[in-house]
Amino acid sequence: MESGPPGGSGPAEPGPRLRGLRGADATASASSWSRFGAEAGCRAPAVAAVLPAGGSGERMGVPTPKQFCPILERPLISYTLQALERVSWIRDIVVAVTGENMETMKGIIQRYRHKRISLVEAGVTRHRSIFNGLKALAEDQPNCRLSKPEVVIIHDAVRPFVEEDVLLRVVTAAQEHGASGAIRPLVSTVISPSADSCLDHSLERAKHRASEMPQAFLFDVIYEAYQQCSDYDLEFGTECLHLALKYSHIKAKLVEGSPDLWKVTYKRDLYAAESIIKERISQQVCVVMDTKENEEHVGRCLEEMLKTELNHVKVTSGQDLQQIILEQCYNFVCVNVMTSDFEETQRLLNMLEESNLSILYPVVVISVHFLDYESVPFGQRMEKVMQIREFAKEVKKRNILLSGLLIYFPQEEQKLQESLRQGATIIAALIKDRNSGLIGQLLVA
Amino acid sequence: MESGPPGGSGPAEPGPRLRGLRGADATASASSWSRFGAEAGCRAPAVAAVLPAGGSGERMGVPTPKQFCPILERPLISYTLQALERVSWIRDIVVAVTGENMETMKGIIQRYRHKRISLVEAGVTRHRSIFNGLKALAEDQPNCRLSKPEVVIIHDAVRPFVEEDVLLRVVTAAQEHGASGAIRPLVSTVISPSADSCLDHSLERAKHRASEMPQAFLFDVIYEAYQQCSDYDLEFGTECLHLALKYSHIKAKLVEGSPDLWKVTYKRDLYAAESIIKERISQQVCVVMDTKENEEHVGRCLEEMLKTELNHVKVTSGQDLQQIILEQCYNFVCVNVMTSDFEETQRLLNMLEESNLSILYPVVVISVHFLDYESVPFGQRMEKVMQIREFAKEVKKRNILLSGLLIYFPQEEQKLQESLRQGATIIAALIKDRNSGLIGQLLVA
Repeated sequence: MESGPPGGSGPAEPGPRLRGLRGADATASASSWSRFGAEAGCRAPAVAAVLPAGGSGERMGVPTPKQFCPILERPLISYTLQALERVSWIRDIVVAVTGENMETMKGIIQRYRHKRISLVEAGVTRHRSIFNGLKALAEDQPNCRLSKPEVVIIHDAVRPFVEEDVLLRVVTAAQEHGASGAIRPLVSTVISPSADSCLDHSLERAKHRASEMPQAFLFDVIYEAYQQCSDYDLEFGTECLHLALKYSHIKAKLVEGSPDLWKVTYKRDLYAAESIIKERISQQVCVVMDTKENEEHVGRCLEEMLKTELNHVKVTSGQDLQQIILEQCYNFVCVNVMTSDFEETQRLLNMLEESNLSILYPVVVISVHFLDYESVPFGQRMEKVMQIREFAKEVKKRNILLSGLLIYFPQEEQKLQESLRQGATIIAALIKDRNSGLIGQLLVA
Repeated sequence: MESGPPGGSGPAEPGPRLRGLRGADATASASSWSRFGAEAGCRAPAVAAVLPAGGSGERMGVPTPKQFCPILERPLISYTLQALERVSWIRDIVVAVTGENMETMKGIIQRYRHKRISLVEAGVTRHRSIFNGLKALAEDQPNCRLSKPEVVIIHDAVRPFVEEDVLLRVVTAAQEHGASGAIRPLVSTVISPSADSCLDHSLERAKHRASEMPQAFLFDVIYEAYQQCSDYDLEFGTECLHLALKYSHIKAKLVEGSPDLWKVTYKRDLYAAESIIKERISQQVCVVMDTKENEEHVGRCLEEMLKTELNHVKVTSGQDLQQIILEQCYNFVCVNVMTSDFEETQRLLNMLEESNLSILYPVVVISVHFLDYESVPFGQRMEKVMQIREFAKEVKKRNILLSGLLIYFPQEEQKLQESLRQGATIIAALIKDRNSGLIGQLLVA
């Protein structure tokens, strides 16, 4: 098993780093720890994380446990692992899964190239699963391959949007206080019902908080709590902060979290997660041209139009394509100005395939061609349709969604602007929905 | 102002009834009241509803108050009004909006043809807004145009998925107990922090519930509570059940609600609501043919393929189109087998425009044509592209999303099946995403 040095940068990874979309990269992670740690007067501790992932997902109303439900064809838990492993100072990530899902989980780790993950068998309740995860880190068990961390993070497999910032804050608070957890304001009033299902009393909303994840503990604090924990608590309890208080007499420090920490619980939460992920990977579009000339030509006009029409989207020129792929841009508009074939698009597709960029997210590629009615015979156009469908089928296997866009190129300036605007609208639609049912189509603007 | 007789059916509405997608129609509503009421030994009371809609939506992180945020281009509050007004036994719906949003709200009522709505000015807090709504129903105010109901429902403008069933249950419980409210299990543990932001204690999750909406009250119970309510409670309180308990000494009956009752609070909730609405209006596809022959032809083969490939979607034949429009099917596949022009599609579009079906939701129409390479010259095909783009632009103004689908029609049976399957995939994609950026395209299967 690989493990990076505590507080240092993680192991080298194939292709682009498996870091989050908004997170800092591994170097920045390490430095943000030092910066934050220095301010708080702490040294960087050895940190591990435990993820209970043994749930059955009954509230979702679907047969698949929610942590394995696909979002853009990738299981939810893989997004959560990605969020944790991009944080270089988390040394080990222990995931507790049921025996029947063990092979599925191994497949996920392999397919999405997750690192620093150890699997343990889940217990029948959440607390028993966490306890199993802690045992794997405790060094007092036979066959233990992991070393005991100073601080352990406990997080849910179904909270994929955890940021490094809040992880840093709970870990630092746990170092100081022994225990810490993220909280959020209550959305609804909490009430206490009487035995006959009538209102007994309602709680003052301002005086209470929802306890969310992540939480962090000095390892010895939470491990001792679990060792002393009654069978009743292991069976019916759900709150780790409560165990730290009851058995180790530690009052956890509470840390305000962001709304993104919410737990994927119902089907609507899966919808929300999918939309958030789609939005995040649609914030940058790279425009690649088949000419390096900087002169005014129709490709540049399209690029300008994209900048005007696509609000909140960063439009970049693909001059240093390797760098842009490394920076994890998931949308490419390949403009073929000079020729009417797919040479430039093919070159881009080859680079994308080599880069492994599409392992984690579907990459949208739109091959743009300009159509001058007078000069291109229709037969040739139909050949092109057929060609792009074959290309698209082939690259779909690598999670690349290829479409063609034919932009009508009239002589009149105003009509050209209208064509380009229409083209930008189609590009925006393809990037937003990322629907694999429409790959290989040649759209017309 | 129109108002239906209490417990009877609502006023006639233009075009299709503005009822919910899963709800019963007005007649069924009335009978479900009688059935339920009879079981519970109650007579049908006069019922009104009050919706506080004066919020600023600061938690959403967007400038538009969340109740006015668009979902499929229609403001959220319109979906909530639609859910309430489809319930025929709710006589009046009083909405409290701020002065600055009064004109916006009037515009929404007019555009989406909402009925039985009265507007009052919102107060600066939620409780003050509700109080203003109650005053409009109290008959003790000058210029009062509404009559006092026996039971009043209080609901949030930002909970669009309320079903008739739960409304019936809270109203019936309020008749018996004086007050009633929907509850849900807690998703997160609730904790009480100490002054220094540490954990003081955590609440046992099983012994508490989240108080949701709708709630219902005997009008006199809640109106008296508000009249006695302290300025402090009007300013800082949020829970009506608490006011009924504190000032009218009524212990509300608690009713288990469905997960769909959740409150649209954050941006992710808007995403979730949009996905749920899209899913609901995508559950039925009507296939219209330009031939009434029941023989085996390629149109029938496509219909069969749609039945096989579109899981969870009801595929119906458009033989009685008027009836299907009345039943609120929002997806049409118009198969042109006999001719290569748009005659049948045009006929369908005319019917849809006359029906007002697309006032509430965008309607997807896919005009399917079959392409025999050998017999159709390419020039003719290009003309068709241009034709459908013009049609699409025109009907988009009426909220109809028109696309074309050209299905390759080879002689070989296996290849034909492949074409039809590809066609079904494209149809599914267009219906699922309902993206207006792709209207007027001629897709190829």
